[in-house]
Amino acid sequence: MTYTKYSASGNDFVIFHTFVEQDFSSKAIKLCNRTEGIGADGLVALVPSTEADFKWLFYNSDGSVASMCGNATRAVAHYAYNNGLANSSMKFLTQAGLIESIVEGNIVQTQMTKPKAIKEAFEQEGFTWFLIDTGVPHLVAIVDNLEKYDHDICAKMRYEYNANVNLVKVEDKKLFVRTYERGVEGETKACGTGMVACFLRCLDLNLVEEKALVYPISQEELTISKIEGKIYFKGAVKKVFTTSI
Amino acid sequence: MTYTKYSASGNDFVIFHTFVEQDFSSKAIKLCNRTEGIGADGLVALVPSTEADFKWLFYNSDGSVASMCGNATRAVAHYAYNNGLANSSMKFLTQAGLIESIVEGNIVQTQMTKPKAIKEAFEQEGFTWFLIDTGVPHLVAIVDNLEKYDHDICAKMRYEYNANVNLVKVEDKKLFVRTYERGVEGETKACGTGMVACFLRCLDLNLVEEKALVYPISQEELTISKIEGKIYFKGAVKKVFTTSI
Repeated sequence: MTYTKYSASGNDFVIFHTFVEQDFSSKAIKLCNRTEGIGADGLVALVPSTEADFKWLFYNSDGSVASMCGNATRAVAHYAYNNGLANSSMKFLTQAGLIESIVEGNIVQTQMTKPKAIKEAFEQEGFTWFLIDTGVPHLVAIVDNLEKYDHDICAKMRYEYNANVNLVKVEDKKLFVRTYERGVEGETKACGTGMVACFLRCLDLNLVEEKALVYPISQEELTISKIEGKIYFKGAVKKVFTTSI
Repeated sequence: MTYTKYSASGNDFVIFHTFVEQDFSSKAIKLCNRTEGIGADGLVALVPSTEADFKWLFYNSDGSVASMCGNATRAVAHYAYNNGLANSSMKFLTQAGLIESIVEGNIVQTQMTKPKAIKEAFEQEGFTWFLIDTGVPHLVAIVDNLEKYDHDICAKMRYEYNANVNLVKVEDKKLFVRTYERGVEGETKACGTGMVACFLRCLDLNLVEEKALVYPISQEELTISKIEGKIYFKGAVKKVFTTSI
């Protein structure tokens, strides 16, 4: 069986396609193992669909099913196009609904799930916070200096609101983001849904245009746009290698 | 360029062979990266040698050179035999000297470097310790119950003696080992030089024969022997996959 490993904004995935939809949970545990497998954050199986170009089955490295992963949608779209499973503009079915993606070279744009504001702006720990669900819940605070990122404050806010925590700095209408992620329980190199949450907060306050460049600490350039009410997330993915195991 | 990933007792390595000896430090950093590379603890390049079947160049994942790694010698011997670079009984040159290995299926036996006792037995923290260099320095304490493993005591001893710390339990002349490793700064699944240190301490006290089965917490069965004054370490290795990158 042939598998391809992809990297996208700090996350990595093992991707393959097959005709038969079944439970690939134990395969995910085996293939995502970093010592005795290919090693990845998640496994994605592409299977046929009557409603879209294909359907994805997404598993975390522990074998559990996840409904959505923004970075994985971009890697999967690149894989599908490169393996002749879809045109460069495609639709595919996930557990969170239909996803639209466009592939241009190694740059992939994906439509994100519809965001839902959870709580109005409020003050705490010296910051003004905004709580929004962009697939998962995110707290956002706008800051003048990203050095204000404080692990203990982030951890406190994360547990109190059961949300990821983002600090965003706006400079020349570009966004610079630092994210504390639940599960990892610390700062990560990049978080797609976190960057989208920051973009939406800044757009509400007219600090950015409806298309903005966003930079996580991994320093990759990502583009987030709001077009006819829909949110799009765009950036490079990297095919790392293909192997049989 | 084709690379093979191997796993051996909890460590993993990327291995390849080439005719030209050069500095592969930057290649090690790139290939050992777990997101954008193959992902491994170390990279080993096999190059021609006039003195032995081949010579190895060993790099840690950060690109630094390491003189010895017991688990890597076993993976490399399997790779060399399977790629027709050596017979099943071979000698190869490392930065720590000539290594002898024998490959039988997926089981590989390697001769370890000559051990040196550093300090006589002494009492501390309620244990009797023994300090020996088996390639790297190891503290060993014999216990009646491996639950006596205590992170704080291990960390304290590790810093005071700049050594790895092992607790070993003897049962039916078999050894059961838990190891706190420097660098990792915590317990690891298995440590080849640590198991050898435990074997030598138990052999000194006539608690084991000159050939003993040893089990790290990864539960793999390893065999350590003393034959004509030389120490041999034997156990399974796993070829995980081959790819080009």
